[in-house]
Amino acid sequence: MSFNTFGRLFRFTSFGESHGAAIGCVVDGCPPRIPITAEEIQVELDKRRPGQSRFTTQRQEPDAVKIMSGVFTDEVSGQQVTTGTPIMLMIENVDQRSKDYSDIKDKYRPGHAGYAYDVKYGIYDYRGGGRASARETAVRVAAGAIARRVVPGLTVRAALVQMGPHKVDRSRWDWNEVGNNPFFCPDPVQAKFFESYLDGIRKSGSSIGAVIEVVAEGVPAGLGAPVYGKLDADLAAALMSINAVKGVEIGDGMAAAELRGEDNADEMRMGNDGSLLFLSNHAGGILGGISTGQPIVARFSVKPTSSILTPRKTVDRYGNNTEVVTKGRHDPCVGIRAVPIAEAMVACVIADHYLLHRGQVGEGPSWPFPMPGA
Amino acid sequence: MSFNTFGRLFRFTSFGESHGAAIGCVVDGCPPRIPITAEEIQVELDKRRPGQSRFTTQRQEPDAVKIMSGVFTDEVSGQQVTTGTPIMLMIENVDQRSKDYSDIKDKYRPGHAGYAYDVKYGIYDYRGGGRASARETAVRVAAGAIARRVVPGLTVRAALVQMGPHKVDRSRWDWNEVGNNPFFCPDPVQAKFFESYLDGIRKSGSSIGAVIEVVAEGVPAGLGAPVYGKLDADLAAALMSINAVKGVEIGDGMAAAELRGEDNADEMRMGNDGSLLFLSNHAGGILGGISTGQPIVARFSVKPTSSILTPRKTVDRYGNNTEVVTKGRHDPCVGIRAVPIAEAMVACVIADHYLLHRGQVGEGPSWPFPMPGA
Amino acid sequence: MSFNTFGRLFRFTSFGESHGAAIGCVVDGCPPRIPITAEEIQVELDKRRPGQSRFTTQRQEPDAVKIMSGVFTDEVSGQQVTTGTPIMLMIENVDQRSKDYSDIKDKYRPGHAGYAYDVKYGIYDYRGGGRASARETAVRVAAGAIARRVVPGLTVRAALVQMGPHKVDRSRWDWNEVGNNPFFCPDPVQAKFFESYLDGIRKSGSSIGAVIEVVAEGVPAGLGAPVYGKLDADLAAALMSINAVKGVEIGDGMAAAELRGEDNADEMRMGNDGSLLFLSNHAGGILGGISTGQPIVARFSVKPTSSILTPRKTVDRYGNNTEVVTKGRHDPCVGIRAVPIAEAMVACVIADHYLLHRGQVGEGPSWPFPMPGA
Amino acid sequence: MSFNTFGRLFRFTSFGESHGAAIGCVVDGCPPRIPITAEEIQVELDKRRPGQSRFTTQRQEPDAVKIMSGVFTDEVSGQQVTTGTPIMLMIENVDQRSKDYSDIKDKYRPGHAGYAYDVKYGIYDYRGGGRASARETAVRVAAGAIARRVVPGLTVRAALVQMGPHKVDRSRWDWNEVGNNPFFCPDPVQAKFFESYLDGIRKSGSSIGAVIEVVAEGVPAGLGAPVYGKLDADLAAALMSINAVKGVEIGDGMAAAELRGEDNADEMRMGNDGSLLFLSNHAGGILGGISTGQPIVARFSVKPTSSILTPRKTVDRYGNNTEVVTKGRHDPCVGIRAVPIAEAMVACVIADHYLLHRGQVGEGPSWPFPMPGA
Repeated sequence: MSFNTFGRLFRFTSFGESHGAAIGCVVDGCPPRIPITAEEIQVELDKRRPGQSRFTTQRQEPDAVKIMSGVFTDEVSGQQVTTGTPIMLMIENVDQRSKDYSDIKDKYRPGHAGYAYDVKYGIYDYRGGGRASARETAVRVAAGAIARRVVPGLTVRAALVQMGPHKVDRSRWDWNEVGNNPFFCPDPVQAKFFESYLDGIRKSGSSIGAVIEVVAEGVPAGLGAPVYGKLDADLAAALMSINAVKGVEIGDGMAAAELRGEDNADEMRMGNDGSLLFLSNHAGGILGGISTGQPIVARFSVKPTSSILTPRKTVDRYGNNTEVVTKGRHDPCVGIRAVPIAEAMVACVIADHYLLHRGQVGEGPSWPFPMPGA
Repeated sequence: MSFNTFGRLFRFTSFGESHGAAIGCVVDGCPPRIPITAEEIQVELDKRRPGQSRFTTQRQEPDAVKIMSGVFTDEVSGQQVTTGTPIMLMIENVDQRSKDYSDIKDKYRPGHAGYAYDVKYGIYDYRGGGRASARETAVRVAAGAIARRVVPGLTVRAALVQMGPHKVDRSRWDWNEVGNNPFFCPDPVQAKFFESYLDGIRKSGSSIGAVIEVVAEGVPAGLGAPVYGKLDADLAAALMSINAVKGVEIGDGMAAAELRGEDNADEMRMGNDGSLLFLSNHAGGILGGISTGQPIVARFSVKPTSSILTPRKTVDRYGNNTEVVTKGRHDPCVGIRAVPIAEAMVACVIADHYLLHRGQVGEGPSWPFPMPGA
Repeated sequence: MSFNTFGRLFRFTSFGESHGAAIGCVVDGCPPRIPITAEEIQVELDKRRPGQSRFTTQRQEPDAVKIMSGVFTDEVSGQQVTTGTPIMLMIENVDQRSKDYSDIKDKYRPGHAGYAYDVKYGIYDYRGGGRASARETAVRVAAGAIARRVVPGLTVRAALVQMGPHKVDRSRWDWNEVGNNPFFCPDPVQAKFFESYLDGIRKSGSSIGAVIEVVAEGVPAGLGAPVYGKLDADLAAALMSINAVKGVEIGDGMAAAELRGEDNADEMRMGNDGSLLFLSNHAGGILGGISTGQPIVARFSVKPTSSILTPRKTVDRYGNNTEVVTKGRHDPCVGIRAVPIAEAMVACVIADHYLLHRGQVGEGPSWPFPMPGA
Repeated sequence: MSFNTFGRLFRFTSFGESHGAAIGCVVDGCPPRIPITAEEIQVELDKRRPGQSRFTTQRQEPDAVKIMSGVFTDEVSGQQVTTGTPIMLMIENVDQRSKDYSDIKDKYRPGHAGYAYDVKYGIYDYRGGGRASARETAVRVAAGAIARRVVPGLTVRAALVQMGPHKVDRSRWDWNEVGNNPFFCPDPVQAKFFESYLDGIRKSGSSIGAVIEVVAEGVPAGLGAPVYGKLDADLAAALMSINAVKGVEIGDGMAAAELRGEDNADEMRMGNDGSLLFLSNHAGGILGGISTGQPIVARFSVKPTSSILTPRKTVDRYGNNTEVVTKGRHDPCVGIRAVPIAEAMVACVIADHYLLHRGQVGEGPSWPFPMPGA
């Protein structure tokens, strides 16, 4: 809803810089009596944590999350549950080699947010990217771990489906493979290839972009708020707000431009259980900004990491021409770590709309409707 | 910020259905003493108006806008200006052939919002798509006409750059051509081709998708609000909220996935006038969610119109399998009319961030900064 | 939530000036399938309408409300119901004697908003007070008529309990009397006195203040959102936003300062039906910002109308000392007309919190709780 | 704007319970380059801190605030300044005798929020009042310390003006006396009396209410956002959101009801310096919801502390009748500690409207206006 707050009813407000004392967020609007522990949040955070393979930044950060407020022990179940009050989640920064950045503190790195922050605010915490660092995204993952528990039956999964020009083969898609390689890749063959491919990128001091796909299943039909709170518009903002994202697609995405009406139309039939079946899912689970009950499918591109070893022309903050090389710890393909972040953001958007729908519409109508006169 | 309201400081709240008494919006938060007349808004509306060629819906609607509040005559200039109070803009509906829709009122048209609205709300104004009709976008254009005047020096232009699989040739791009053909196409050669191509689509009762590109020039550096009010995230939501949009790109967009870091980095040099020059614009004018002063470049895909003459399998609201054909007045390529709507939405987002920046940061720092000790 | 929008989930955005083309509002976030007609809204509006007795402004305005969007005929019931889309309510201005104000257009009337608007915006629609006119409150009454239907079992009633220094006798309080006199006074004896008292005020060209009390019954326990969305804080803002209001009280209000803890504590006992009974209501139905199920009781003071016949010292907009007398049509006690407005605002706040609670908490827990181990 | 967030552009989101790990807030939207240190915030916090005299709770809490994010060293000045990113302020809880509350954990204390929280959320952190504890107000004071620095020239001061039925003598009002007694009382004679008076209350295990007055000077004319973001409406909500507040007044407040129009009108004259002078301030510095440049004057009542030693009838959470006595550490007059909290809340509201005005109107018009034709 505002600068550092995300969401409308299920909201989180994020704080912290890469090299400050801590990062964290305040989750507000979460329903009461939802069981949650720091350990459960930690599981999600560990997926995103850097330093896990040679393909992500070597910053060694335990990213240990603490729940500082908003939970209490339920007398009946003995479980720790949410109380309806704000849940503060905090991750202390422990590996902050600020000295790594001192020689470039006055130079704007091409593709980095440094110049933009400086020209906006007149001051910039340059250490590790400060507030613009991807480190902030850890708190999104933490908030998302709670969001996932808000919507009964919701499953949100993401996978890397393209690295540079190389796409996965969808006929080999296996969600179980996503955890078996350091790329969150659902195609084990392509994952093997990515290993050597990214090694080459890394050793040359370069970086490469990627495409991530997110799929949300178990989303009730009817979520979304036309006209300016459309579910797809909120998802687009959520995914575009992730660092380095440059494009977002729902369903057929950009390719929808090439389709004819008769191909794009997702036809419908009644299922044996009285529910509605769609015969295809070009729409990606959303029509008119409202979920249809089909899986929600979104994709987004992540640009290559801007921190590279090749010298680039730039200027410094005092208006002098110069060159810059980034020697810090960085990811050759920052898109990899975007996978759990995307899951979290999608979970937060859906949780938010779940509460909004429950508030505005309540239990909702029962579909199909009775025939008039019946 | 919420369901039918768009924006944070420069906001508009939209109302109205396709076949109701009127559509319109309340523009709130607009600065005072900005000259504006209904005639000036009408110029923008006429661009979007249907019935202008055989390539858009034949609904004959003058779309005459009235300013119902929020303006007054300035004593000194004698001009009609905004007063800082809410500006209500209203367009009465005059050509509402509701009978066209009566035979399909109980059938869900594949690709339409009808089922989603029905399962959400339990009731749906099916006449002409009701609230989900593209007719609502007329009020966006009206609001955008005011937004354009809020930011001094701002120019926002859009063009259709792809229809079906056919792209424009960028070497022939001429903004002056956009007004010379019924497609808002900047490439006169391709525009000629689109004429016969779309005629074929139309005559076969089919429809086709499109890609639109929007370019905003004169956007001051420093607009945008990290981390969840990023300028690009707000643009993504704004464009995705337009009917039938399925993908949004900023700068290199989805293609950024294929780039290496050294190619993606927009290098910088000092200009002769002391300003900063970027040597390329892969970023599309936005870094870290903040405008850099470069042109902002966004693209989006529009799916083919769902209303087609080919029978499609569907169900009715009572759970029976059936087929449906849409015989109403419709666009063979609804993407064409998205061009002025996209300009309006981008203008609104920029106006909003212009006010937000002025509020939070004020006049802002002067860049380049003085050397320490100087 | 912002300048001309009131509410969070149940919201309305108001527009219009006293002497413009129309006033109205867009009600957004209203649940679907609530039966409502323009006639039902008109009943509420007629209570507030000026020109009904010699004690309110003689402006003759039918205040006929039209529903311009957001309703549709329910096929099953045949009733006109809300659809979940924005409901635009419009009242055209018909009696706008602008010439009445031309001789005072450059003079600031003490106690009026004219100077404040001018110094803020640099332009002011002075005709009849423009946007600052109490005429805007008609749209609140219209919105409130819908809000009342959102919460099942809700009753909101208000009454004038003090005029100048003269209070009603609470032992004679009879809600049925409120409609029997032109003052919305629940004490028939005092109402009789007010008649001659206010006649004296009116004839002398003066004006007088008043106190209004609002009582909401049938408010479910549990509404309200600590810490900054407290039900009482929202009520205070809602009532203070009514023109000319200078003080707001909940329960014992300002008098709570004089109480001792043992007197202020509302003791509790179990009712025969298993519900909780409070033995008193010093709290006015709200504890910790959350409704307790007791009647919500609020009071507010309305200052005397600033438009009086006695000349007052002032300055004009060009910085010259001068004097001013207001000769237009005005109320000797503007507090009278605040009665239906207050009911509407309280209904809107409660409807909003009802939806917020349903969204965030759902159906909620069942109290009393089972004993541990039971 | 929402549950645990206060403000629109200058916002803070609060978290924490009385007996949790920590309390704190995230201040968002604060302009950049404002010098601030933890020590400066601590000065304000120490005013509110309990345990300072025998008249406030004996809980011994250092209330040491840490700035966890959002500040950085300005290279030129060497000062620590805000960066425009969220400022997280944290106060760890150190004196949390939870055992004090174990014997009353199932009993609802009359006047406390316990029952309301329980019936809303189905779970309640009863230790020390949990989220409903006045302890949360410490973070408001911390946020207010920053807000004070946002508006140049702003001074906000508050004083206790009534305890029980005993009011201060305004002819003896001396702001310098406020810091010389444990009651924040501006009247040294009455302060002396309060000492023995409150001692009596305290020794009898009772408690007493109070009235606080807040005065803001140096508020620029033109702040406030009609119609639903009125400055006085926002102040009313802000003050009513403070624990135990039951009434709020602006200017003449409830007494405005007794005034005649000619007495209530604040007449105007031009000052020698070309500014506008008001000859009185019945309005409390606000007209039409907009500041006039006069001092803003607000008052509010605080009910007596609900925690008293006299046994009170109540029920437990399982629906049994019982009695309750509160033996914990508590304030005989909780209104005393509301003084610095009120200053903070008023500062936050004014800072917020200062940014809003700058955003929407910019530098604003120059008053008085030039004569037409001049």
